Amino acid sequence: MDRVLSGNRPTGKLHIGHLFGVLYNWRKLQDNYSCYYMVADWHALTTQWQDTSKIRDNIVDMVIDWLVVGIDPTRSVLFVQSEVKEHAELHMVFSMLVTLSRLLRNPTFKEYVAELRIKKETPRKSVLKTAVRNTVDVFIENVAKKLNSGEGKLDLDFMAYLRSELQKTFLENLKKTLEEEEEDLPYGSLVNYGFLGYPVLQAADILVYRAKYVPIGADQLPHLELTREIARRFNSLYGEVFPIPEPLIAEFPKVPGLDGRKMSKSYGNAIEISESPESIRQKVKRMYTDPLKVRKGDPGHPEECPVFMLHKLFNREEVDEIKESCIRGQLGCVECKRNLAEKMVKYLEPFREKRKEFEKDRSQVIDILKEGARKAALVTRETMEMVRDAMKIWK
Amino acid sequence: MDRVLSGNRPTGKLHIGHLFGVLYNWRKLQDNYSCYYMVADWHALTTQWQDTSKIRDNIVDMVIDWLVVGIDPTRSVLFVQSEVKEHAELHMVFSMLVTLSRLLRNPTFKEYVAELRIKKETPRKSVLKTAVRNTVDVFIENVAKKLNSGEGKLDLDFMAYLRSELQKTFLENLKKTLEEEEEDLPYGSLVNYGFLGYPVLQAADILVYRAKYVPIGADQLPHLELTREIARRFNSLYGEVFPIPEPLIAEFPKVPGLDGRKMSKSYGNAIEISESPESIRQKVKRMYTDPLKVRKGDPGHPEECPVFMLHKLFNREEVDEIKESCIRGQLGCVECKRNLAEKMVKYLEPFREKRKEFEKDRSQVIDILKEGARKAALVTRETMEMVRDAMKIWK
Repeated sequence: MDRVLSGNRPTGKLHIGHLFGVLYNWRKLQDNYSCYYMVADWHALTTQWQDTSKIRDNIVDMVIDWLVVGIDPTRSVLFVQSEVKEHAELHMVFSMLVTLSRLLRNPTFKEYVAELRIKKETPRKSVLKTAVRNTVDVFIENVAKKLNSGEGKLDLDFMAYLRSELQKTFLENLKKTLEEEEEDLPYGSLVNYGFLGYPVLQAADILVYRAKYVPIGADQLPHLELTREIARRFNSLYGEVFPIPEPLIAEFPKVPGLDGRKMSKSYGNAIEISESPESIRQKVKRMYTDPLKVRKGDPGHPEECPVFMLHKLFNREEVDEIKESCIRGQLGCVECKRNLAEKMVKYLEPFREKRKEFEKDRSQVIDILKEGARKAALVTRETMEMVRDAMKIWK
Repeated sequence: MDRVLSGNRPTGKLHIGHLFGVLYNWRKLQDNYSCYYMVADWHALTTQWQDTSKIRDNIVDMVIDWLVVGIDPTRSVLFVQSEVKEHAELHMVFSMLVTLSRLLRNPTFKEYVAELRIKKETPRKSVLKTAVRNTVDVFIENVAKKLNSGEGKLDLDFMAYLRSELQKTFLENLKKTLEEEEEDLPYGSLVNYGFLGYPVLQAADILVYRAKYVPIGADQLPHLELTREIARRFNSLYGEVFPIPEPLIAEFPKVPGLDGRKMSKSYGNAIEISESPESIRQKVKRMYTDPLKVRKGDPGHPEECPVFMLHKLFNREEVDEIKESCIRGQLGCVECKRNLAEKMVKYLEPFREKRKEFEKDRSQVIDILKEGARKAALVTRETMEMVRDAMKIWK
């Protein structure tokens, strides 16, 4: 079976957005592929190096959710990235094959930097602003002097003087700016080296398994592109070792958070897979609904209502009925939410129960991951042998 | 005994510059320290990734020179960097603790880039030049239009117009330049990611042994500085794991090449430790000497003569005598060189003989390096345990 690689940063317990957006897809992939599911702890460190104290617990908490949903350690390989040394090793090799420019142009990197820069005016911007101001001031001062001395006249000579004066002051100022700045990036002090390299690590993660497929959302295609570039580059420099991995793009249902935005832990609008019944009821109760439906009798717009979107996922049988009676104004939001909450409680119950089993002895999860790392290493060591043979380097 | 780490890129057979500049020092250090001597093959890849075909042979050739000179594998640990996986692993951790700016300011990196840029005008420079040219052209054109229309007069209003017009065109052009350039470095397409990170790898090389001392030349002090910074940063973030390594600065005799410049393989002016007697004689014969001493009778200036400098190293007994008779004009260069060549042949003979032994069975060198990697890993694994414990990450 062809190998598939996918992974997740260790964020702790997962929410129902992950359930429909990632885990069900992973579970299904197990039927047709040899799946490697990775806890991306190196990736987590690129941005969370300052507080690492919760990583171990977060790993176990997350992997329990994988297990309860049906990611099966007897069929798939579940492991922690940093435990399989060849990820770091292949990353080292690949870091020679990618230019700085290529990484600086990476879309995710640019987004991250753009966000940083909103918060903080970069040194370069202010230096350039100063250069502009200085150029204009010096230029105008010199022209004024010339005029005051009676030399300036509006003729071709004076135009030529303007031109050369401007060019001179402009270049002098820019030269200073360039000297101060050109060895540096305007945001270079805000970004660590490892963060710039995370797409290189991603390429290593995928290619160290010679994975043929990578399940990704359509918005993640640019990430895979660099991996494909690196694979091609390696193959053409040293000989065919890597397949060029293909995306497996699946359609995922939208899972809205409590506030109607995309569900995300960082927005505080999530319902965890293992959320307790009381907490589910509390959270669903305070969900946003259709703002045009104020009173029970008002007609609703279910297709724009996050509560209805969740009915689609957790209450498929009643979906048509709910839709109709909402539009007709027969169904009140309070009742509709209460119904949803009960359906969710029931739907998630088996997951919650299975989690309890794992929580009783978390060491069994650690054992599963250790065993996964051992199995993963069988492939990664083989790949590194092939890499070293192709490159003719030490082995 | 305190641990010392030093290393060399696998450049193949070493020359007598290495002998006096590195190897004798390494040999001596064995008496007082627990020495780890590394073949820096990852480092070699940062610049030589395009042609890797000779790396394996170069490694063995170089290490034979280590061995024949007296680097003793029963006392020191001789190993290949890439075989000890924890170098790449610790590098990954450290890459989170160093900003891009810090690496871009690294002196060796700046030198390397400066050299590249001499050869190739960087994109940024040409974009800026174009921006300057455009600004001036547009500005002058606009002023000319105003004048032609009869509106322009040399008064305060016209000065204000100049100012605002200039500021506008300047900023428009710069904005375009900035947009095109600010996510990139002017030389970013010429440098690979791994090369920028080589000082991070160097820090990992040293600290993965928790080495207390690093033998370096005085000119390499800035390199050690980043290692010390990273060690301090790690310790203060996660707890004391690393000693702050100290330099061991030794005085090395100058070893001139055949042409009087510093001996270097890339200059083509080197004599190898294992150079054959005939080749030594040939090479010494064509060495540069004191240019003021044309004929045998002319008085020489031995302190400026590369041949004399080599007498100081290979012919200590006769050094005073040679000096005096050269100054007096009694010693001819031909005779002086012939004498030096014979002394060198004799001096290097035991090394040459020992190399023959190793050449008979190069696999014994490979065995020594494999055994070295095994011993090295005992320390590096322990360090990584400590690192993972301190960071509280997965282990």
